[in-house]
Amino acid sequence: MDYAAADAYLAKQRERHLGDLQAFLRIPSVSALPAHRLDITRASEWLADRLRATGVPEVRIMPTNGSPVVYGAWPVRAGAPTILLYGHYDVQPVDPVALWQTPPFEPAVRDGRLVARGASDDKGSLFIPLVALEAIRSVAGGPPVNLKFLLEGEEETGSPNLAPFLHDNRELLAADVTVSADGGQWDAETPALALGNRGLTGLQIDMRGAATDLHSGTYGGTVANPLHALAALLAGMHDANGRVTVNGFYDSVRTLSAAERRELARVPFDDAALRRELGIAAFVGEPDYTPLERTWIRPTLEVNGMWGGFQGDGSKTVLPNEAHAKITCRLVPDQDPDQIADAVEQHVRRHAPEGVTMTVTRSKGKARPYLMPAEHPSLAAAAKALRAVYGKDPVRVRVGGTLPVSDLVKRELGTWLVFFAFGEPDNLVHAPNEFLRLQTFDRGTRAYVRFFDELGRADPASLRA
Amino acid sequence: MDYAAADAYLAKQRERHLGDLQAFLRIPSVSALPAHRLDITRASEWLADRLRATGVPEVRIMPTNGSPVVYGAWPVRAGAPTILLYGHYDVQPVDPVALWQTPPFEPAVRDGRLVARGASDDKGSLFIPLVALEAIRSVAGGPPVNLKFLLEGEEETGSPNLAPFLHDNRELLAADVTVSADGGQWDAETPALALGNRGLTGLQIDMRGAATDLHSGTYGGTVANPLHALAALLAGMHDANGRVTVNGFYDSVRTLSAAERRELARVPFDDAALRRELGIAAFVGEPDYTPLERTWIRPTLEVNGMWGGFQGDGSKTVLPNEAHAKITCRLVPDQDPDQIADAVEQHVRRHAPEGVTMTVTRSKGKARPYLMPAEHPSLAAAAKALRAVYGKDPVRVRVGGTLPVSDLVKRELGTWLVFFAFGEPDNLVHAPNEFLRLQTFDRGTRAYVRFFDELGRADPASLRA
Repeated sequence: MDYAAADAYLAKQRERHLGDLQAFLRIPSVSALPAHRLDITRASEWLADRLRATGVPEVRIMPTNGSPVVYGAWPVRAGAPTILLYGHYDVQPVDPVALWQTPPFEPAVRDGRLVARGASDDKGSLFIPLVALEAIRSVAGGPPVNLKFLLEGEEETGSPNLAPFLHDNRELLAADVTVSADGGQWDAETPALALGNRGLTGLQIDMRGAATDLHSGTYGGTVANPLHALAALLAGMHDANGRVTVNGFYDSVRTLSAAERRELARVPFDDAALRRELGIAAFVGEPDYTPLERTWIRPTLEVNGMWGGFQGDGSKTVLPNEAHAKITCRLVPDQDPDQIADAVEQHVRRHAPEGVTMTVTRSKGKARPYLMPAEHPSLAAAAKALRAVYGKDPVRVRVGGTLPVSDLVKRELGTWLVFFAFGEPDNLVHAPNEFLRLQTFDRGTRAYVRFFDELGRADPASLRA
Repeated sequence: MDYAAADAYLAKQRERHLGDLQAFLRIPSVSALPAHRLDITRASEWLADRLRATGVPEVRIMPTNGSPVVYGAWPVRAGAPTILLYGHYDVQPVDPVALWQTPPFEPAVRDGRLVARGASDDKGSLFIPLVALEAIRSVAGGPPVNLKFLLEGEEETGSPNLAPFLHDNRELLAADVTVSADGGQWDAETPALALGNRGLTGLQIDMRGAATDLHSGTYGGTVANPLHALAALLAGMHDANGRVTVNGFYDSVRTLSAAERRELARVPFDDAALRRELGIAAFVGEPDYTPLERTWIRPTLEVNGMWGGFQGDGSKTVLPNEAHAKITCRLVPDQDPDQIADAVEQHVRRHAPEGVTMTVTRSKGKARPYLMPAEHPSLAAAAKALRAVYGKDPVRVRVGGTLPVSDLVKRELGTWLVFFAFGEPDNLVHAPNEFLRLQTFDRGTRAYVRFFDELGRADPASLRA
C-alpha cells in the first residue's frame, strides 16, 4: 500500500474528519442513564451511517436487551485474514458537570487537545480506525483484510448483554482475530501493546451480632462486637508481606520465566514520579515482586469498602450489631473467578468469628484473566505499524484492571483479541474534561493504515493459533 | 418517724402527686435541641416552684453557660447530716416520634404504667424524693437531715457545665454525702445498690493512603489500602481471648478479692434469659471472668464505628484512600482516662501500618471510673430502707456504663455519691414509649421516706469518710 498517499489523504481531510468526530461527540450517548436512551439510538444510527459512508457494504443495527450493536461486514477476498474490529459508542456520565471547563457534549479544541466526553473513551478511539479505513479506500479501493465490526453501546455499564450477543451470533462474527479500538498507549509519546489484563471476582461479607445495637457500657466486653470480628477476619486475609492467606489462592497462578520477568523489568516505569503523583511515600506489597509485577502478574484481594457502627461527628458509645465489607480480587492466569470466590468464601467460613453470624454474597461482576501468546503475529504486525509512526518500539504491558471483552471474545468467538488503541493515561476518561491529543489522533490513524496493511499479509491460520 | 402515717399520706395524696408529675412531664425540656430552650426554662421554674411548695426555704435558679441549675437548701439543725440530692430535669429527644403509641409529652397511664418522655429518666425519678419529702413534712414537720438540692438541666447532653458549676459553688453545695435520684433497680421487683460505674475515654483514628481514591486494578497490590491497614491495627488491639493488647492497659486495674468476686457471683444474673433477649448464642470475652464481671469490673476497648471506601449497593472496584475508626474504652478503678488514652494512642503509633499516614484525635467526653467503699454507711441505710419496702435485699451492682456525675461530685465536692433510684431496666429510656411502673413510683416514695430517716441517724463524719 502507498503509505505516503494514505498519509497525504489523512492530512488533507483532517479538518473534515475532526468535524465529523465532533458531530459524533455531540450525541450524549450515556448508557448508564435511561434519560439518554434515545441518544444511544441516535449514536448507533450515526455510526451505522458512518460505516456505510466509509464503504462498508453490509451494516446492521442489531437489537439486544439493552443498547443495540452496530454490526458491519466488508468482505474483500477469500483467503485474506478476517478481522473483527471492536469498540463502543456509549460514554460515561458527566457528573460532576460543574467541573467541566466547556460543556461535555460541546467538543472544544484547546492546546492541541480535543475536549469532550468520549473524546478518548471510546468514540474518538473507535473513530480512528474508521478514518484510517477511509484513507485506505481512497488509495487502495478497499481494505487489505476482510473486515467485520462489533461496536457495542453498553461497555460503560459492564457490557451486560455482550456475552449472549456473541454467543448467539458466533457465525456472523466469525473472524481470525479481533482488534480492540478501546485501549491505551504508554504515555503521550510512546505506544503500548497490552498482552493481557487481570480478571475479577468479588463478594460481600455481612456480619451480625446481637439483635440490635447495644450500649457499649452495659454489654461491652461480653457481647461480640461485629466490628472487632470483621477487622480480625479482614486482617487475617493478608500476611505481613501483603501475601493473600486464603488457602489455594495462588494455586493456579502461572509462574513467569526469568526471561519474561526481565522483559517486564525493561518497561520504562518511573517509580519516583508515580509515587509523587499518587502522594505516597512508598509502594507496599509482596517483596519478591516489583511494583509493576504486583499490579500486572500477581493477583490481589482488596477490600473496597468496610463499614459499621457510628460514623457521625463526635462520639457514640454504641456496641454495633452489624459490620460489612466488600471485597474484590484481581485475577491472573490461570485463576478462575468462581474457584477463587469459593476459596475466599471458604476462608471466611473457616475463620468465622465467635459470637457473630455471617452471610457471604457473590458479586454479579466477574471476569476471567486474559493473556495473549507473546509471539502472536498480530502483535508483531502492530509493533511494526507503531514503530513506523512513533519511531520507537511499543512498550509491552499488562493491564492491572479488568477488560471483560478480551476473555469473552476468546471464549465465545474463539479468537484472540489484540488491543490496538491510543488512549493516553492522562486523558481524564470517566472524569471531567476528558480529552484526546490531536497529535495522537493523527498518529493513530496513520498507525491503523499500516496495521491493517500488515494484517493483510498475515497467514489467517497463524492468527487463529 | 411514723412510717405508717407517712405511707398513709402518700396513699391518700397519690392521685394528686401523679397529676403533678404529669404536669411536669408535659414540659418538653429536651436539652439537646435549641428549639426547647424556653421549655428548659419552664421546667426549671416548675421545679423551683415545686421545691418551694414542698417547704424548701431557700430555692434559687442559678444560671450556667447552658441550662440553669435548680438549687435548694433546707437546713434543719447543726449536727445532723447534710445531704445533697442530685437529679436532672432535662430529657432526651423523642425521635422517632412515629413509634410512640401516645405523644411523648402527653403522659398516659396504661396497664399500671406512666408513659411519657422523662417518666423514668429522670423527671419521674427525681419527683419521687420530692413527694417523699412532702410526706415527711406532713408527719414530722420537716426533714430529719439538712437537705440541699442540685437539679441540673443538661445531663442528657453530657453535663458540659456541671464541673465548673460544682467547682465555683463548692461552699454552697457542701454536704456530707450526695444522693443521686438518677439510677436504677435490678428488675421490676428487686431494688439495687450501685457501688460504682465504669469511666470512659475515647479517640478517633483517621488513616490516609494515596492522595485520592485509586483504581483497584491499576494500583491494587502495590499501593497501601487504608482499609487493610485499619483492619490490621484494630484486630491487633485484642488477643484471641478478648484481652486488650495495649501496653499498660491493665496496669492500674484493681484486683478484686476472692470474697468480692464471690459476692458478685451471688448476683441473680440469668445468663440464658439475657442471651435470648439479646439474640446471641454465646457471650464472648476474657475467659477468666464471668460475663457480669467483664461488664462491671473489667475495662474494655470497643470499636464504636469503622468505615471507609464504597458502601453502596453492588460493587465498586476502588482502592480507597481513607479509613476511619472511633474507639471508646470503659475504665475501672484505678484507670485514668488520660493515661489510657495515651496508652492507646502510643499503641496506635507503635503499630502504624506501612504506607499510610494517621491522625489520632481524643474525644471530648471522658470520665474517671467511680467506686464507693462497700461499707459506706449510706449503703447500709439504703439497704435497710429498701428491704423494708421490697421485702428483700437490694442487689449490689456495678454499672457498666459511665455516670460522670459520681466522680465529678467526689472530686469537686469531696463527697461520695450514693445512687438511690428506681429506674427499671425495661423502661425504654432514650427510646420511644418510655415508662415507669406506678408500683415502682409508690415503692420509691416509701423507700425515700425511710432512707432520709435512716440517714438522719447517721454520723456525719462517717458519711464523709
